[in-house]
Amino acid sequence: MTIADRWLLPDGMDEVLPPQATRMETLRRALLDLYYRWGYDLVMPPPVEFLDSLLTGTGTDLDLQTFKLTDQLTGRLMGASADVTPQVARMDAHSLKRQGPARLCYCSHVLRAKADQHQGGRSPVQVGVELFGHAGLEADLEILRLALSSLTTAGASEIHLALGHIGIYRALVQLANLQEDARRALFEAIERKSPSEVRTLVAMHVADAGLAEMFSALVNLHGGEETIEAARGALVDAPAEVVEALDQLQSLCQGVKRDYPDVTLYIDLADLRGYQYHTGMMFAAYVPGYGQALAKGGRYDDTGRAFGRARPATGFSMDLKLLATLVEQAPQADGIWAPTMATSETEAQQLNAAIAHLRNAGERVVQALPDQQTGPAEHRCNRQLVRLGDDWQVSPLT
Amino acid sequence: MTIADRWLLPDGMDEVLPPQATRMETLRRALLDLYYRWGYDLVMPPPVEFLDSLLTGTGTDLDLQTFKLTDQLTGRLMGASADVTPQVARMDAHSLKRQGPARLCYCSHVLRAKADQHQGGRSPVQVGVELFGHAGLEADLEILRLALSSLTTAGASEIHLALGHIGIYRALVQLANLQEDARRALFEAIERKSPSEVRTLVAMHVADAGLAEMFSALVNLHGGEETIEAARGALVDAPAEVVEALDQLQSLCQGVKRDYPDVTLYIDLADLRGYQYHTGMMFAAYVPGYGQALAKGGRYDDTGRAFGRARPATGFSMDLKLLATLVEQAPQADGIWAPTMATSETEAQQLNAAIAHLRNAGERVVQALPDQQTGPAEHRCNRQLVRLGDDWQVSPLT
Repeated sequence: MTIADRWLLPDGMDEVLPPQATRMETLRRALLDLYYRWGYDLVMPPPVEFLDSLLTGTGTDLDLQTFKLTDQLTGRLMGASADVTPQVARMDAHSLKRQGPARLCYCSHVLRAKADQHQGGRSPVQVGVELFGHAGLEADLEILRLALSSLTTAGASEIHLALGHIGIYRALVQLANLQEDARRALFEAIERKSPSEVRTLVAMHVADAGLAEMFSALVNLHGGEETIEAARGALVDAPAEVVEALDQLQSLCQGVKRDYPDVTLYIDLADLRGYQYHTGMMFAAYVPGYGQALAKGGRYDDTGRAFGRARPATGFSMDLKLLATLVEQAPQADGIWAPTMATSETEAQQLNAAIAHLRNAGERVVQALPDQQTGPAEHRCNRQLVRLGDDWQVSPLT
Repeated sequence: MTIADRWLLPDGMDEVLPPQATRMETLRRALLDLYYRWGYDLVMPPPVEFLDSLLTGTGTDLDLQTFKLTDQLTGRLMGASADVTPQVARMDAHSLKRQGPARLCYCSHVLRAKADQHQGGRSPVQVGVELFGHAGLEADLEILRLALSSLTTAGASEIHLALGHIGIYRALVQLANLQEDARRALFEAIERKSPSEVRTLVAMHVADAGLAEMFSALVNLHGGEETIEAARGALVDAPAEVVEALDQLQSLCQGVKRDYPDVTLYIDLADLRGYQYHTGMMFAAYVPGYGQALAKGGRYDDTGRAFGRARPATGFSMDLKLLATLVEQAPQADGIWAPTMATSETEAQQLNAAIAHLRNAGERVVQALPDQQTGPAEHRCNRQLVRLGDDWQVSPLT
């Protein structure tokens, strides 16, 4: 292997260099502080678990995304975490066992065997929150508001929020009582937002004319907030769950507009992303210039059942690596350039004391090393520490 | 598989729950801030690289420690990072290519296929610094002082610093010109600090009586600072490199005592840890009550050669998970308990505005959810938000 090959990185496994790594750290702190102030407790899931634990409950879909490892200690198959959410659900259900609502947040590197088509890398830093133990709309609204606050914290201004509710499709498909093949074909046609395919499929498989009409309407039910009213008309004969879902979406829109009047709302009732996973409202937040959603979330009740304790849950997550590209923060030439170690013991003590004093006061002090070729500019210093009589003082660079 | 099995975690792959996760986050910030103030730039290496890159140069020893993964995109073998240092060396040599000294720091989860016998887990959070591009003692002393500052930042008080220098053993063994088997046996006997074994082995394999005597002396050269003087006597006929190494150790001791007079110094010239890796001074810092070193480091010149650019290097690393167990910080009941969403739209707006105002001022505000069974105490709140006329005010819990 040549030297040139050795510095190649696997596709989607990126390193983060200065100053971008500092921007990520700054944003990480701002987000975790935000979650703290909203009452969310930080947890850190293990980067590797037994595969059986990772791919259960809300993690069932993650099989192809998960890197497999053999545990040399037990011979059992383990997996690298590809999504923190199922891990946090396990922690809530089993490790914490809190009564009542539990608010948890996290910020962890995850690994993906294949890059998600909607996401760039295979090593995102997943940051997010989960609210367990409350099935009400208030919890969903708290999550939505916190997601929007996260984006504004990162510096996003023009936010587009897409809102959906998987309960509508679920109710209709349950009523239709389709064969597995037909159900899958219809699912994919709606997901592709193809009205003609949907019309053909329901003509073949859905006997009830009213229900067939509702499926055909569903695939077109996306657009501005007025979509909710349009849905009330088109789905007037739908079961009670559909009406309830539409009521929920209306309340969520109202709640978002109250606190975030600048957010552009988009309603998408044909959005079936996370069908295996979600049980209620779902959302994705977009910002111009980014091809993928910067925050994704929704309700996923019944999580934790695989761990012995079913709990309602709602939450969202983001990729800190991607989100930090929003941050515009130039590296500052804010340092103080200090001379190389002094020659006498007394002088060394005084110099070290002066440097320690400045650092304790929060200053960045870079000490020159003997014979070094680079100067204060290369080390982002705009001042220097100079000897004045028996004392050391900070002065402008000469 | 039963539910009970699903929440088992692999040995050494631990989750971190509240409040320990918060203590870790607090310490992470304090350390990265410390490194920033000393002029170190943050980098974030990828969690997975091609195996050839990971196991080269300073990473050669890590093969058995490294989890192997197959890249589905290229079919090439990848490895999960088991040690950040070789990755940062690659970044310095290839990605950054800075002239002159480069100071880098990091804080990343690493994975180990087997637990190090001296370390607890298989998923430590490695935090540390590297100083590239300077071969002088001043760089080593900066690293030593920064390691000691890291430990005091974490709350360590009684620090024991073990100092060694691999150059001494290297110089003697080069002079002895031993067969591979004899060399290995002698290495292991010295590492086990077994004077009788060393005496037997040198009697068999080392023809030069003076050199044999020096090996026999070396295995006993550990103890207080006076060990350096003892070594000057016992190794008086050793090559110049040995004298230079002893001079370096003496200067380092002096430098440590100047700034950290309370640190207990321990000199260990028979310490051969990291022989494949280190090229100069080596150290390990201990704190009573911990069976393993909390910080380990030293000089490892010539790093980066595998990536086309050999550079002098010195640095240290720690396990943040272990280090954070030093932190004594009780979770605070510092929150404000806010009522459930108000009923009218006007009231909701006022309540939300009051909560947002408090959170922006840095307060932790936990909003009750409808019908929840737990109260302010369970959510660590010591105050509440109550309505007073048209206004919302913070008041003591009743």
